Amino acid sequence: MNVYADNAATTAMSETALNTMIPLLKTGYGNASSLYGVGQTAKEYLENARKTVADCLGAKPNEIYFTSGGSEADNQALLSAAMIGKRKGKTQIISTKFEHHAVLHSLDRLKTMGFDIVLLDVNSDGIVRPEQVAEAITDNTCLVSVMYANNEIGTIQPIREIGKICREKGVIFHTDAVQAAGHIPVNVADDNIDMLSVSAHKFHGPKGVGVLYAKTGIRLTNLIEGGAQERGKRAGTENVPGICAMAAALKEACDNMEENSKKVSAIRDRVIDGLSEIPHSRLNGARSPRLPGNVNFCFEGIEGESILLKLDDLGIQASSGSACTSGSLDPSHVLLAIGVPHEIAHGSLRLTFCETNTLEQADYVVKSVKEVVNYLRNMSPVWRDLETGVAKHII
Amino acid sequence: MNVYADNAATTAMSETALNTMIPLLKTGYGNASSLYGVGQTAKEYLENARKTVADCLGAKPNEIYFTSGGSEADNQALLSAAMIGKRKGKTQIISTKFEHHAVLHSLDRLKTMGFDIVLLDVNSDGIVRPEQVAEAITDNTCLVSVMYANNEIGTIQPIREIGKICREKGVIFHTDAVQAAGHIPVNVADDNIDMLSVSAHKFHGPKGVGVLYAKTGIRLTNLIEGGAQERGKRAGTENVPGICAMAAALKEACDNMEENSKKVSAIRDRVIDGLSEIPHSRLNGARSPRLPGNVNFCFEGIEGESILLKLDDLGIQASSGSACTSGSLDPSHVLLAIGVPHEIAHGSLRLTFCETNTLEQADYVVKSVKEVVNYLRNMSPVWRDLETGVAKHII
Repeated sequence: MNVYADNAATTAMSETALNTMIPLLKTGYGNASSLYGVGQTAKEYLENARKTVADCLGAKPNEIYFTSGGSEADNQALLSAAMIGKRKGKTQIISTKFEHHAVLHSLDRLKTMGFDIVLLDVNSDGIVRPEQVAEAITDNTCLVSVMYANNEIGTIQPIREIGKICREKGVIFHTDAVQAAGHIPVNVADDNIDMLSVSAHKFHGPKGVGVLYAKTGIRLTNLIEGGAQERGKRAGTENVPGICAMAAALKEACDNMEENSKKVSAIRDRVIDGLSEIPHSRLNGARSPRLPGNVNFCFEGIEGESILLKLDDLGIQASSGSACTSGSLDPSHVLLAIGVPHEIAHGSLRLTFCETNTLEQADYVVKSVKEVVNYLRNMSPVWRDLETGVAKHII
Repeated sequence: MNVYADNAATTAMSETALNTMIPLLKTGYGNASSLYGVGQTAKEYLENARKTVADCLGAKPNEIYFTSGGSEADNQALLSAAMIGKRKGKTQIISTKFEHHAVLHSLDRLKTMGFDIVLLDVNSDGIVRPEQVAEAITDNTCLVSVMYANNEIGTIQPIREIGKICREKGVIFHTDAVQAAGHIPVNVADDNIDMLSVSAHKFHGPKGVGVLYAKTGIRLTNLIEGGAQERGKRAGTENVPGICAMAAALKEACDNMEENSKKVSAIRDRVIDGLSEIPHSRLNGARSPRLPGNVNFCFEGIEGESILLKLDDLGIQASSGSACTSGSLDPSHVLLAIGVPHEIAHGSLRLTFCETNTLEQADYVVKSVKEVVNYLRNMSPVWRDLETGVAKHII
């Protein structure tokens, strides 16, 4: 059986997205900034896509800027808010310890530019509490950035409450919604969000396309300078086929969200229940509120990478955390942030499902992971020490 | 007859590029940074594409960084070279007055960061002379950026000679090769180029993909921070389908360059000869060295936009200059740089051909432009004044 269970890393494009994109690749090649007919047709496609994306997110079309992906959107959002702060003499930025590296590394850069970066702790459930944000905000705060849902452990943050606090205090609120958009309800108006980042390939859209939402009145700073595309805020010939495919994928995901969520949650729950039976295992992050498709476990005594390679042999594609940092020997900063001990943070397994997965696959995954964990533990000297009492179990 | 004559703005994807991209969109969705099989397959595709692009440009694979397009590549190149200069205490950057806005606006930003920007004049032929560069370089120069071929008037710059001067003086040399790559021979080794920008959709590849070449030893500064993709220098999940399609398109363009160039030059020459017969017209930029597909004319007494709309009615898609600035009422900075008077810089027409155009189309374009110019002049009070001697002809 083949099971793709790494949908948080990237998803297969949906038929709808493909059927939107391919004809545009073939014939919709007009430059959307050109005056003549085929250019203006491309422009219409582009603006329809903008309206679709805006509708899906509760935004206005002129608040939607197309980017090359979630990382670019995060980078531009943080830089823009920081520059707004700088113009007002405000230099403190509040974020959290378990953000995606697109946020954390952008903050590192802003730190070298003189900004004061405060990273909030995350509790063992993988949640940032609104009160933490309220307590951290000072008169010097120009930006709060808290992710909508974590990319490794899938925990959903109290975004609406955090947004409310920021709005009351007059602080710009950005959320990296790369894992959330298309999977759980995201509405920038209801959720009090000023800026938000989205990536198409996380909801069955194409790679290389994303969205930066910026509320009316927020002046963006260009990350990419050049032509006057995207109202002068993001240069570069518009990737109309990719953008339209993203819009189609997002609309499809939002239209079917309730049904998909129900189906995917059932798969997730079946896998969590199954893996919880493995002794000395641990579900990372609260069981709820959690993204419908996210399962993240640690197994004491074994390495994450070994699990992945054995699972791959069994036809299961999974990850040890973020694909963006695979190959790195460091344990996950997310797991460390929620208090997972260093020794077991290496042994994590992330399985992320979507609506094309099945309960049958869930059962196969549980059976396979159990076998693999057993097999690897039997070979592991660390595990032997734990079982013979030479070392002490943590989980 | 329908004639797409705006290939400098964007090109239709080639069959080869489409046939590379579509299967990857459908099934090659693995995350190239993932450990498991389908991720590693995506990684192999990515690295093969990198090798192909490197081979086409005379570079080494590890000198190729994939970006979201030419604008991003230009922005990152200039920022990187400036930061290298800053670390050495060098703050002068030399470029030219007729660069693409992705370069000029990047330079504006660097100016606000304390860099001293020197923009060289361009002669009436649309050429920057190597001696100008040699004279401008000082001990404080950290970067020279001169485009390989101009996007509006198609004039090809003496890149090899400029590169040689920069190398002798130990100054980093960047060239925006967005209009050149795939159309004329570009070889970073032979041409003494340290950094170079490419955009896929200018040579029948997809939109939203580009290349930044940076010679070994040049430390890039990230424009987009985040994951460790592109050796940590460009974050964001790799757009493998787009990148592979770009590589396929570039290889095809390079493999067929001689033949295509011959065909396209014949079309260009037929159109230039034809339009030269129109009284009070002017070819902008030298006839040679000029990109095989570029024709750029001014016609006294009429507005560029009116010509475009009438040509569109006749099935001909053209532009008045750069698509990136269309909608702007300012005359082209390129035409002003080469000394075209303000009054006629508004009346420019850019026709850019590729190998799918035909000589029959060239004849139709000439006939149509003649008709349109006649028609518009007959309606133009400016032209009446010129013809009656109330105003004086410039051309």
